[in-house]
Amino acid sequence: MNQKQKSKTTKQPPQKTEIRLSGSGGQGLILAGIILAEAAAIYDGVNAIQTQSYGPEARGGASKSEVIISTNEILYPKTTRLDYLLALNQESCDKYARDLKEKGLLIVDSGAVEHVPPVHSIRLPLVKTAREKVGRVMTTNIVSLGALVGISHIVSPKSLEKAVLSRVPKGTEQLNLKALKLGFEMAEEIRERFED
Amino acid sequence: MNQKQKSKTTKQPPQKTEIRLSGSGGQGLILAGIILAEAAAIYDGVNAIQTQSYGPEARGGASKSEVIISTNEILYPKTTRLDYLLALNQESCDKYARDLKEKGLLIVDSGAVEHVPPVHSIRLPLVKTAREKVGRVMTTNIVSLGALVGISHIVSPKSLEKAVLSRVPKGTEQLNLKALKLGFEMAEEIRERFED
Repeated sequence: MNQKQKSKTTKQPPQKTEIRLSGSGGQGLILAGIILAEAAAIYDGVNAIQTQSYGPEARGGASKSEVIISTNEILYPKTTRLDYLLALNQESCDKYARDLKEKGLLIVDSGAVEHVPPVHSIRLPLVKTAREKVGRVMTTNIVSLGALVGISHIVSPKSLEKAVLSRVPKGTEQLNLKALKLGFEMAEEIRERFED
Repeated sequence: MNQKQKSKTTKQPPQKTEIRLSGSGGQGLILAGIILAEAAAIYDGVNAIQTQSYGPEARGGASKSEVIISTNEILYPKTTRLDYLLALNQESCDKYARDLKEKGLLIVDSGAVEHVPPVHSIRLPLVKTAREKVGRVMTTNIVSLGALVGISHIVSPKSLEKAVLSRVPKGTEQLNLKALKLGFEMAEEIRERFED
């Protein structure tokens, strides 16, 4: 196993990172947001806010979960311009891509999202990996978190793992660890490609 | 005061209700916030925002979950003045009671909170009911939601029940329905006392 130890980067992390996780209701994106916020706040020791806004679209089954991570106090808890957007369906992608910063990154599910707008984006087989490699489509949220964090390092992978273990339902720990690992591996492959 | 103005307002529910659920980590207050927001947004058809803010206190095990319910669009997602505060421990009560509106209501656990500040407040045996009558202390969050909603009617009891059933872990539905019913009953007793 190729254990790449990312040693301390001298580069300071950005002060504030805004993330939106979007898709359909039932894809576990609220839980994913909570896990990401707790990885940041409880295990990485920075500040975080996690929000769900429910408007009329919630009745249609759309789901949106937002996380802001900051080394400073977070005064305004709503995202303004996104650093990262996860879109697990076409509708979310169409609706939210415009909220990305100029250098923000869109991560979409390659099976569910066909048309990707002209922003920095990565298409990943998130749902397919959860369904076929983990064997449970309900782990899409954790595969996605692994991919997002593996690519972005917005929280440390170890903190994310701890947060996953503390929040997923009892009895599903091994399944979700596998999902997380597959997400990390997916990110690693992307990183290697970028570094070529 | 201005009687004309007053009579114009028919018995509409307040446009905006701000609720904070506070206590210790592990008491299920994040889940309770999500359930309350979904009862409002998905089943009652109004707007809702649900937020967790994690600062340094999260590392100490404190937990805080906020919900704003509104018939209008919610522009600022953070609570400003609370209509309802649930405090399941003394520390939360001490820290947050000052954030209540003048006519806001504080609901505290009678076992865990000894000193109650001079605001409108109700002491209820929430933890005790969960432990002794439901038989599972982990249902304190749902007993509390039942009591809060039974007293306040901030969402309809039926919507709350649906939201509970859609969010609690599989296999715990009956247990949580019992917890919810006990919370409603507790509220009913309080109401009767008020109406005497």
